[in-house]
Formats: sequence, C-alpha cells, structure tokens
Amino acid sequence: MATGIGPDELRERRERLRAAMADRRPSGLVVFDQSYVQYLTRFSFLATERPVAYVEGADGESVAFVPEFEVARVRAEAAFDRVESYIEYPGNEHPMRVLARLLDELGIRGRIAADQDGYPGILGYEGPSLSEVTGAEVVLAAPALEALMARKSEAEVELVRESARWCEHAHRLLQEYTRPGTTEAHAGLRAGYEASLAMIDALGPEYDGGLSSTDGASAGYRGQIGARSAWAHAVAHTIEFRPGDVLVSETSAPVWGYNAELERAMVVGPPTDEMRRHFDHMVAAQRVAFGALRPGVACADVDRAVLRYFEEAGILDTWSQHTGHAIGLRNHEAPFLDVGDPTTLEPGMVLTVEPGVYDSAIGGFRHSDTVVVTEDGMEILTDYPRDLESLTIPA
Amino acid sequence: MATGIGPDELRERRERLRAAMADRRPSGLVVFDQSYVQYLTRFSFLATERPVAYVEGADGESVAFVPEFEVARVRAEAAFDRVESYIEYPGNEHPMRVLARLLDELGIRGRIAADQDGYPGILGYEGPSLSEVTGAEVVLAAPALEALMARKSEAEVELVRESARWCEHAHRLLQEYTRPGTTEAHAGLRAGYEASLAMIDALGPEYDGGLSSTDGASAGYRGQIGARSAWAHAVAHTIEFRPGDVLVSETSAPVWGYNAELERAMVVGPPTDEMRRHFDHMVAAQRVAFGALRPGVACADVDRAVLRYFEEAGILDTWSQHTGHAIGLRNHEAPFLDVGDPTTLEPGMVLTVEPGVYDSAIGGFRHSDTVVVTEDGMEILTDYPRDLESLTIPA
Repeated sequence: MATGIGPDELRERRERLRAAMADRRPSGLVVFDQSYVQYLTRFSFLATERPVAYVEGADGESVAFVPEFEVARVRAEAAFDRVESYIEYPGNEHPMRVLARLLDELGIRGRIAADQDGYPGILGYEGPSLSEVTGAEVVLAAPALEALMARKSEAEVELVRESARWCEHAHRLLQEYTRPGTTEAHAGLRAGYEASLAMIDALGPEYDGGLSSTDGASAGYRGQIGARSAWAHAVAHTIEFRPGDVLVSETSAPVWGYNAELERAMVVGPPTDEMRRHFDHMVAAQRVAFGALRPGVACADVDRAVLRYFEEAGILDTWSQHTGHAIGLRNHEAPFLDVGDPTTLEPGMVLTVEPGVYDSAIGGFRHSDTVVVTEDGMEILTDYPRDLESLTIPA
Repeated sequence: MATGIGPDELRERRERLRAAMADRRPSGLVVFDQSYVQYLTRFSFLATERPVAYVEGADGESVAFVPEFEVARVRAEAAFDRVESYIEYPGNEHPMRVLARLLDELGIRGRIAADQDGYPGILGYEGPSLSEVTGAEVVLAAPALEALMARKSEAEVELVRESARWCEHAHRLLQEYTRPGTTEAHAGLRAGYEASLAMIDALGPEYDGGLSSTDGASAGYRGQIGARSAWAHAVAHTIEFRPGDVLVSETSAPVWGYNAELERAMVVGPPTDEMRRHFDHMVAAQRVAFGALRPGVACADVDRAVLRYFEEAGILDTWSQHTGHAIGLRNHEAPFLDVGDPTTLEPGMVLTVEPGVYDSAIGGFRHSDTVVVTEDGMEILTDYPRDLESLTIPA
C-alpha cells in the first residue's frame, strides 16, 4: 500500500480542476476548505480561526497562504511553488487583506474561481468575503471539486480498502468486548485503543491518519443501544449492555485521511422473532441495493429500488434514511444514494450502502458496508459477517 | 457539579440574544451552526449534509427543524415547543424549501435574524441560501451570539473547571508514559484510554462529553517532538521519543461539551542551557500575561504586554503566535488575546494563556493554561506544574 497520494496524482487532480473551470476563464483559483486543500495538495492543517488558503495561478503555479507560524512546517511537509503568510489573526492587518494583496500581485483579479466566497466562520472567525477584499467576481468551484472527488483513483480505493481492514479489526474487538454488564464506553474505548495500537504498529512510522494526536481506529455504538438503536444519529451515553438489547455499531480508521465505513446491527442474547424479522428485511434491502449498484445507474434509482423493497414487504413504517452516501477524505460526501440525487454512478465511486429498518419499540437494524463501483457492477470493500448468528452477542 | 446547563440558563441565553437583536426588529431567528444550537438549546447533533436549524418566533416559541429520523430523539432528549422535520436530504423536495414554508407559517418573514445565510456547505451539502428561499432580508446574529458566548456563567465555568481536572489527570498519565524508546502514539493512546475510563467512571452514567462514541479525555503531542515542537500546529506522526527531545503536549476532556486546555513544554532528559533559557523566557512571558489579565483591559493590551516582554528580552525572533484565545463549547473561540482584538475583558470570560518561544533548531516551548477573568483579576483553572524540573522526563 502506498503511503498516501503521490505527486503525479495531485498534479492530475489540479489539472482536471483547471480543465473543469476553463470555460469560465478564471484568472486563478482560491480554495479555503480543509478537505479540498488536502485533496488538491495533500497539505493537512488544523482548521481554526486563522485562515488558510490554497492559491493557484492560471498557469498552475501553486501557492500556500498560511499564518506565519506554519511556514516552516509547510516547507518541510508539502510541495508548493511558493509559501506566503500573514502574521496572525486577527492581527494588525486582517489576513484577508494580505491575501487580497497577494492575489493582485499574482495577477489573480477580475474573475476568481473559489470553493466559497471567503474563509468560513469557524471557531469565532470573522472577516470580509473574498469578493469584498478583491472586488473580483467569484465563480464557485465547489461543484467541480465535489464531482472530481466523487470518482476515486486506484490509489484512493486502495487507501479506503486499507481503512476497511482496520474497521474490521476494530469491530472484531468491539464485538468481543461487548458483553452484558459492561458499558458502551468501556467496550468501545478498549476496542479503539487496541485496534489503534495494532494499526499504528502495522502501518509503520510513516502512518498518518489525519489530524489528531491519537489518530487510529475507533469503535462504539454512539448510544444506539436497546430501543435507542432506532435513533439513527443517537449521541453517546455510557449505557450498560443488557440481554435483549439491539445494537448498531460504528467504526472508523482513517488511513492517510481516507475512510471506510463499517457498521453492524447486533443483538445481545437470542433474538426474538420480531428482531429476526426486522434483521432479515434489513439484510434483504441491503442486498437489493448491492444488486442495483452499477455504472450508468442513477443514485436515485438505487434508493428507489430499496424503497420499492420496503413498500412490497409492507414495512414502509420502518423506513427512516436514504440508502447511503459517498465516502473518502470526508466521512460523508456527495453523491447520495437518495431519491433526490440524479448523479449517474461511475466506476471508482466509493459509497456506503446502509438501508436500515427502524422500530421505535424494538430498535434499529442497520449494516453499513463500503463499496466501490467497478466497470460492471460493484465490489464490497468491508469484509465482516452480515448474518444474525455471527452478530449475536452471548448473554 | 451540575450535569450540564439547566433550562433556566438556556431560557436566559435566548432572552439575551433576543434583546441583543431587538433594535433590528427581526420577525424571528434561524440558527444553523451546531455550536450555536447547542448553546441556545443544549440540543447536540451530528452535523452532516442534512440541514438542522433552531428556529425561534418573535414571541420566543422554540422550534427544532431536523430530518425526520431525528424527531423521536429530539422529543426525548431536548425541550422544544415544536419539532418540525423534512424527509431526507437531498430528497424529493430540498430541506431549505421545507424550512421556508415552516418559517412562513410561523410568521417569520420580511426580516430574519440568522447566524448565517443558509446551511453551511459541509460534507457535500449544496443548497439555496436562506434569503433566496424566503425572499427575506437576513440580519446576521453571529456577532451577538459570539458576544453572549464569550461571557461564561458560573455553571459554565464549573464545567470548564471539571474539564481542567481531567486534562490534568490525562497529562499526569501522558507524562508517566512518555519515555525514550516508546512513541507518541503509544504514550498518548494509553494516557487517553486510561483517563477516559477514569473520567467516565467518576462522572457516572449521565456523563456526556459531546458527540462521539468514545468521548472522554485525550492526550498527546500532535507531532510536537524534538525540533518539530517549534511547529505550533504540527500534525501527528508516530515519532519515537529520544533523550534531548523538546516536547509540547496537548490534552482535551470535554465535559457536557465544555473544554479546558492544558499544554506543557517538557524535555526528555537533562535540559541544555539553551533549552533552559527558552523555557524560562516562556514561563516569564506567561506570567506577564497572567499579570495583565483583568476586567476592563483590552485583549490587545494583554498581547502587547507579552510582545513587550519578548522585545525587552531581545527574543522577538522566537515569537510566533498571539497570547491566547477564548474557549468553551468550542476549543477556540473569540475573543483572541491578539494585538488586533479590541474586546474589553469582562468577568466570566474564559481564555487560554499560551505565549510560546519557538526556535527552529531546538524546539518550541509553550505552556497553555485556561483562566477565568474574575471581578478583580483572573483565576487559573488548570492546575499542573509549570517548572522545568517537574517537566523533565527521566532519560
């Protein structure tokens, strides 16, 4: 496995973005969003109230715009033609004014392609928009960036595949440590800790998950325990497992920024007939989605096929969320397997497939697997049992 | 310690926000940002591509606007007068259109106060702005929200104080596990794991850190090891500790969403004279900032006092970052202890104090402590040794 994305691929991404924007004839490009900057340049940074931008001239010259204290690290860790900086935020002169001067000096004026019209208002940041400080017309490049990011290269799929392996490992540990009488927090923290150590040792000293000190694997239930498992976006609570609980797990293991998603519905102790029925419908609905996923099909049609299954099975009252979403550098990204998304599936698109059956009295049942669209169908990247017997916790 | 913020305080926050916006006479309020929603309502959610908004009528009626699958959880976990929903994103009808209809029905039209003009473009979200879908004039409420959030109540300070205790505990473990021959990843993951277990057991089953499955404490160096410690925002690498390394640590331990910050410069093995000199200057600069912090003083003046220290000591070439930032529900927030921030300090403001001395050849030296501005000065909330002897790792 490569250690992240190489310089040729980065150059190609930037060329493809320039080509996608060419008909608008921008004088240059400004990108503020952390994920977009990482996608185009592999430069990772802590996004704070201090603006960071990737700037590119019409000729392809690449410029990092960062606070002064980042200059040495950028020079050592990234490959930009130029590194430009401002002293501090808010500072005596607002960083956006410094950026405006830099753009003018680079001949980037009149019409500028940008992912958004200024630095986003995170962590207390306030400042003028890009169009205000430059007087330029801002042409939005975010749709073109999203379209580029949606089609993954072989190297990207390989990184997601590696992430999937570590999600599987973390999930095996989570399942092993999930027992009646212990809590979600204890099982999840232990599984995440041990899987992270294994991952870091296996991937070696070059391993870089993303941004934090303790990158690695994580695993848990985010409160999706018992009847609360019907709340698809439950929030963590230190709940004790009890026989009869329905569980929905989640795992994460970024590998050079890339993520797979692996989630499983499980039950603590022997399932009731009703649990078994919900579980079986969920597995069948996921199989319908797998069968519908291939190049040339619209995302909406995959979701429609799943909805048709719910309708024909007479279980529309247990439907709650669309079928899935793309995934990569971000845990969720466009396109979405949703009736409202007309995007046509193409080889290289990586998506989660996770139709769920939700019953507020009994619980939620959802497997999430990560798949890549291939030339003639799709391949599942997450390899973990899907059957109820394998997913029953002893009680 | 209270288990988070109570209903009276939430009501008061909303009343103060309405009062702050009253002269603009908005017909109602719409808030999209996750932290702002949590601040006004205590409702936490996973911010994804699915829009969520807190809506408030001019009479104070509180309405949650969420995707349908969140309705049951919102009813169980939060206290809104009404819960309104849309089916899915992107869906057959865009959620912003559903929101526009709801606002019209609530009589919120003409002029609307909002933290921003639409849902932010995260994780592949795309959609029309609030002003586009409503035809209303949007009056920005973010500055008023930031000003409210900057002055913490006693209950908020108590939560930050509890967070500080767990940062201290995590840091004691981190320091104990940091030894030559082991790596940052091993020391940090172990300290975070053990501190999280202790924290979760001590704070009891009601403990809620924030959003993830494995909330708790974390500790590490984020790559600030050896000469790389001079990179204030280094990114994690699995680096092995060696005698002679300079380290800058970081810790985190959210308590009902509230954060303290505790960081320490440390050295592995006996410090050289040069290290000792940098360390002493850093401690002295922090003392200057502590001495300058009191109500009525401008944030800029605290930073100026620190800069004056650097100038008079003849070490301006080791200056790299402003003195600190506010902290609370977010790890960084306004105001900033920066020459460009004229905000007047008031009792209840909680800030980090972290002037650093950075030498690209030797390393970075930074302690970060969290303080609260009191009626007649300030109080340090993070209690951890600041002297070099206590912060020398045996080698």
